[in-house]
Amino acid sequence: MSVPFDDRGLLLGDGLFETILAKDGALVLWEPHLARLTAGCAALGLPPPDADEALRLCEAAVAGLTGARGAVRLTLTAGSGGRGLDRPAEITPRLFATAAPAARPEGPAQLVTVSVRRNEGSPASRLKTLSYLDNVLARREAGPAEALMLNGQGEVACAAVANLFWIAEGRLETPALDCGVLDGIIRGQVLAAAKALGVTVAEVRAGRQRLEGAEGLFLTNSLIGVRAVDRLDGHAAPGHPLVAELAGAVSWSW
Amino acid sequence: MSVPFDDRGLLLGDGLFETILAKDGALVLWEPHLARLTAGCAALGLPPPDADEALRLCEAAVAGLTGARGAVRLTLTAGSGGRGLDRPAEITPRLFATAAPAARPEGPAQLVTVSVRRNEGSPASRLKTLSYLDNVLARREAGPAEALMLNGQGEVACAAVANLFWIAEGRLETPALDCGVLDGIIRGQVLAAAKALGVTVAEVRAGRQRLEGAEGLFLTNSLIGVRAVDRLDGHAAPGHPLVAELAGAVSWSW
Repeated sequence: MSVPFDDRGLLLGDGLFETILAKDGALVLWEPHLARLTAGCAALGLPPPDADEALRLCEAAVAGLTGARGAVRLTLTAGSGGRGLDRPAEITPRLFATAAPAARPEGPAQLVTVSVRRNEGSPASRLKTLSYLDNVLARREAGPAEALMLNGQGEVACAAVANLFWIAEGRLETPALDCGVLDGIIRGQVLAAAKALGVTVAEVRAGRQRLEGAEGLFLTNSLIGVRAVDRLDGHAAPGHPLVAELAGAVSWSW
Repeated sequence: MSVPFDDRGLLLGDGLFETILAKDGALVLWEPHLARLTAGCAALGLPPPDADEALRLCEAAVAGLTGARGAVRLTLTAGSGGRGLDRPAEITPRLFATAAPAARPEGPAQLVTVSVRRNEGSPASRLKTLSYLDNVLARREAGPAEALMLNGQGEVACAAVANLFWIAEGRLETPALDCGVLDGIIRGQVLAAAKALGVTVAEVRAGRQRLEGAEGLFLTNSLIGVRAVDRLDGHAAPGHPLVAELAGAVSWSW
């Protein structure tokens, strides 16, 4: 239940993680989580996780949970290494999983624009990495609200632990991945569900002012599914019937 | 010699570190390193390290070294926490130190501009944090050379583990801290030494092209002191006599 002092995840944030919903003792959307972790390893130049071991670790973590709803965190570090930034010639990733109860937040979220920016100029901004301090600082700045993060160009990116959507001019919009946005699993499901409903969807580069005239802001992640936003920087954010429809379309898992 | 699975440094890169030169069994520039770590804690909202404990840990790490020259790494994590990004109400930082031999690199460095950008839009870009993956990726991209990192605005920032200086139009220039640059201890010493020599110094915001006409590029950090750069993106970089003079002025510690 510990990692050594020479672990590169600990020392340098060199690694990745997944946060997986556990419902009634079962892992929700396991395959896409494993696929994203594997793709992230490829992007960072790390060996992929052993799929059987990853599943076994997560199932063992779930087995220790009490209650109907929990969050499993699967962590992969770049393993032990020597001094400095360079990885060793042979990388042996370290894999572990923990679990904790996770209640679904009640009611809509409030969003507050924070000063900490997403670094769209790094591939890490599109991955769920162990170098997550910017997100920690964004959450801290937002206080009890959720943090709205812009990127270095001032474009809307995401919340600290969720993707962001809104409805504008009759279409469903969300920031493009190259704005510095995690390729969220529920983000993908919502985009697919919207298309199936005949809704026009657009992955956009949009300034903060784009949200002023938008309706139906909502957040997505693996633990909350779809969660409406009813206040943005202290102003009421108008709702839209599509939000409930999309929540219903992807709600089988929550 | 390990940290538990719930450590926030491990899980989220929530913490800081210092890399300290050990020479002939003694810590070099201990006070400024401790002061920077303490200031970093304040910037991140973490309790400061216990100064006596930090020194004791570093001295114990040095005692285990063989050879005249080593690097001590002092790591402070935000300690154990619960699920998610929010820190616990009571933070108990975790502090540990390790040491390894560290030869001084021979000869001048080569610099290669990499695609990974510094995030000047986060306070973490000015601190030595455990969320260091961007630096790891920059080093990886540079191969055997040193990485020249630009920030999100395309301005020159720093190398992956060193500050950058150059001489242009008769003055010594280095990127301003708000370009997304670590407040390096040797950076500060070089600026002071140059002023003492009567050299005009300027902390600047400069595009990559500023380096094309510059002379005397050099890198600084606590392990290398001052190290000249003789190639930039495959082209010869002209030297300047001030580099050796500045290296001499701060070389008492190496």
